[in-house]
Amino acid sequence: MAVYTEVSVEDLDALLAKYDIGQVLAFKGIAEGVENSNFYLGTDKAQYILTLYEKRVAAGDLPFFLGLMEHLAQKGVNCPLPVHDLDGRILQTLAGRPAAFVTFLSGYSLKRPQPVHCHSLGEAIARLHLAGRDFTLHRDNALSVAGWQELFASIEGLADRLVPKISLSLVRHLDDIAAHWPSKLPQGVIHADLFPDNVFFLDNRVSGLIDFYFACNDLFAYDLAICMNAWCFELDGAFNVTKARALFAGYNSVRALDDAEVAALPLLAKGAAIRFFLTRAYDWFNTPDNAFVKRKDPMEYWRKLAFHDGVKHAGAYGL
Amino acid sequence: MAVYTEVSVEDLDALLAKYDIGQVLAFKGIAEGVENSNFYLGTDKAQYILTLYEKRVAAGDLPFFLGLMEHLAQKGVNCPLPVHDLDGRILQTLAGRPAAFVTFLSGYSLKRPQPVHCHSLGEAIARLHLAGRDFTLHRDNALSVAGWQELFASIEGLADRLVPKISLSLVRHLDDIAAHWPSKLPQGVIHADLFPDNVFFLDNRVSGLIDFYFACNDLFAYDLAICMNAWCFELDGAFNVTKARALFAGYNSVRALDDAEVAALPLLAKGAAIRFFLTRAYDWFNTPDNAFVKRKDPMEYWRKLAFHDGVKHAGAYGL
Repeated sequence: MAVYTEVSVEDLDALLAKYDIGQVLAFKGIAEGVENSNFYLGTDKAQYILTLYEKRVAAGDLPFFLGLMEHLAQKGVNCPLPVHDLDGRILQTLAGRPAAFVTFLSGYSLKRPQPVHCHSLGEAIARLHLAGRDFTLHRDNALSVAGWQELFASIEGLADRLVPKISLSLVRHLDDIAAHWPSKLPQGVIHADLFPDNVFFLDNRVSGLIDFYFACNDLFAYDLAICMNAWCFELDGAFNVTKARALFAGYNSVRALDDAEVAALPLLAKGAAIRFFLTRAYDWFNTPDNAFVKRKDPMEYWRKLAFHDGVKHAGAYGL
Repeated sequence: MAVYTEVSVEDLDALLAKYDIGQVLAFKGIAEGVENSNFYLGTDKAQYILTLYEKRVAAGDLPFFLGLMEHLAQKGVNCPLPVHDLDGRILQTLAGRPAAFVTFLSGYSLKRPQPVHCHSLGEAIARLHLAGRDFTLHRDNALSVAGWQELFASIEGLADRLVPKISLSLVRHLDDIAAHWPSKLPQGVIHADLFPDNVFFLDNRVSGLIDFYFACNDLFAYDLAICMNAWCFELDGAFNVTKARALFAGYNSVRALDDAEVAALPLLAKGAAIRFFLTRAYDWFNTPDNAFVKRKDPMEYWRKLAFHDGVKHAGAYGL
């Protein structure tokens, strides 16, 4: 988490003239989001976040991401609301990069969320899924089953450096997951990256969801599987079934999972584990030592994959 | 500029209980200051900055730095005011590092300051110098003449990689500057690092000075020489005498430089140039490629040194 592109208030001046957002009182780069450069902007009217989209976000996807945030915010989801300029535009160019202002959300992310937070998160995900149903734009999930095969191909020769013969095991898991991946479950817009960094809390309740730059159309239950992996394992690798039960109970209290979704959860959780294993492994081999971005250990997700591989029924998740 | 140490609100909890600064509404790492980790903290009462002091700041110097900020703020200088806990303490420990909360200053730093800003800066420096006169703690400037010799010794074998035979020229300058360095000029507490990053403006006037972690006791005019080097050269290396004239006029309007100070300015400016050349050269050779911190070009300061070497009289600075 860092600021990749430096921006000064002078750089902003021409852009701010197009907006009715008040006089600048403070402007600072902030460490938020993994892929983009973000800035805190305080004016005499309100607080905002300015995001510059760096190269890992495809410019062609921005209308989907920004349109989705606007759609969700208007439906009452606590997510950043893109700010329109006086001509009605959201997307700008700054320092050679696509850029947008969004509203500032109160709250803070948690490093060690508890069951109460997982319950509130489950409710928030369900509300997001329901609110996104009538969003008209569509974005395929580039990091779903077909994408994993491509990612694996790009690291196949390197993966065994992590653990000898892990490639063989990976091929088997990928084939198995692809063969059984469900296609008929309820689907719609999912966040697809709701790690604790991207969820703000106030008074133990979700106050905001941020960083929609992996959002896409996919299975609702897959979004939950991603969250279960990110929120319900302890640092020592232990699965915390109390947190998982709270997550699913929160979700079910707003939108009830159907039987097919529940039955598919162990497989979806394996898929979610392999997706983050693969992107982390890719970054592991493609990020120089001492780089700006701290690499995350792919093996954490390999162990989560192994856990779910031993799960025969979603009852193991407290369901 | 980056966040070196990650801190979550949970990490903060025990610490915040010792303070009467309200309920947390937002907490984010910010890119401010070069050496330390800084966080924006918004509460229902006010805004604050939390600083974690990383290894390049000596813990033994913190009472000087924090005491100075408190002293200056109480004298009306717009600088961060350290916040006391309920037991009256400023300095804490967080994530294994010394840490302190200070008040949040409105304003923003400029990338391309104009003469009007240099004038306001001159006034602010003079006010800082006057306000510091009755501060009772003392800190020698570790990066003055004697320190430069040490720094040079540490890079002597490497310097010629920047430009062939630059070492020979460096030795000559260092000896010359040391032989003529003034000792009897007016002195007191100086900031010693007032680069544009460390000065906030609102409505074209200085609204705040930050980052006092090089502050020390030294010649007042040396502080101005550092500023002249940092504020009065254009990106193409040209010296902007209009900005220098504005800087000195602003200073003189609050505290008049005496004749000896004016006469010493070309030499002090050479010293200020060599000080930043040396620290940048040291970092150049000791920072890995792709590191977290972007290296700054030492040669920028070599060219400033060469400019001042051709100045025979402070009239060249508009004085």
